[in-house]
Amino acid sequence: CSLDSIVDTKIKEVLNGLEISTSPAKKMTCVSITSSGRLSSCPAGMVVTGCACGYGCGSWDIRGETTCHCQCSTIDWTTARCCHLT
Amino acid sequence: CSLDSIVDTKIKEVLNGLEISTSPAKKMTCVSITSSGRLSSCPAGMVVTGCACGYGCGSWDIRGETTCHCQCSTIDWTTARCCHLT
Amino acid sequence: CSLDSIVDTKIKEVLNGLEISTSPAKKMTCVSITSSGRLSSCPAGMVVTGCACGYGCGSWDIRGETTCHCQCSTIDWTTARCCHLT
Repeated sequence: CSLDSIVDTKIKEVLNGLEISTSPAKKMTCVSITSSGRLSSCPAGMVVTGCACGYGCGSWDIRGETTCHCQCSTIDWTTARCCHLT
Repeated sequence: CSLDSIVDTKIKEVLNGLEISTSPAKKMTCVSITSSGRLSSCPAGMVVTGCACGYGCGSWDIRGETTCHCQCSTIDWTTARCCHLT
Repeated sequence: CSLDSIVDTKIKEVLNGLEISTSPAKKMTCVSITSSGRLSSCPAGMVVTGCACGYGCGSWDIRGETTCHCQCSTIDWTTARCCHLT
């Protein structure tokens, strides 16, 4: 009936707008941030998923949620692998 | 017309409730879990994105999807970097 | 009234379908890809969150967004930790 098709059209109109706003988190993207020294930080809004260190060092920890800290005695560079949803 | 505005109001009512439930995955959050020895596991519901090992070791693998295993001959601690969507 | 319940039913019908399509990004899943040599790449559609290297090496970088490159002079294997949203 006519009512049914009016309602149907109306709903689809509203949902077309909605689909854009309800799917903000679809992909994961990552960047590497390399700094000299034993600390390297992710940009605001990104999280650290792992760290790499100079001199072959694989001992690291995360400080304050977004900063990689390489622990070996001699370290020349530190890389933070930083990701977020886009 | 009146029908139009009734339908419009009704749709917005339902969608206001919906917006909360259709956006469950907005942010990525991570934690570090450190254990003594060569194994460290993520909490249930989280995935391993990387591992760190004592004694500067960068050789690791993932066992059973959620456990970091450090491979070097001498290892005193292992950290699993664990993430999920919230 | 009757109009109200027709509209209500109609909206719920449409939203039942919608709930499936508006929540495509709910979980993060990861796999490890290990290759011999100093390079290892993620499958299409996945991102690198971290790398592991043979010979205890913790120095790595990401080439072209999806390939782990282990930097130490001697490397026998490289693992890329690869994640995406499902």
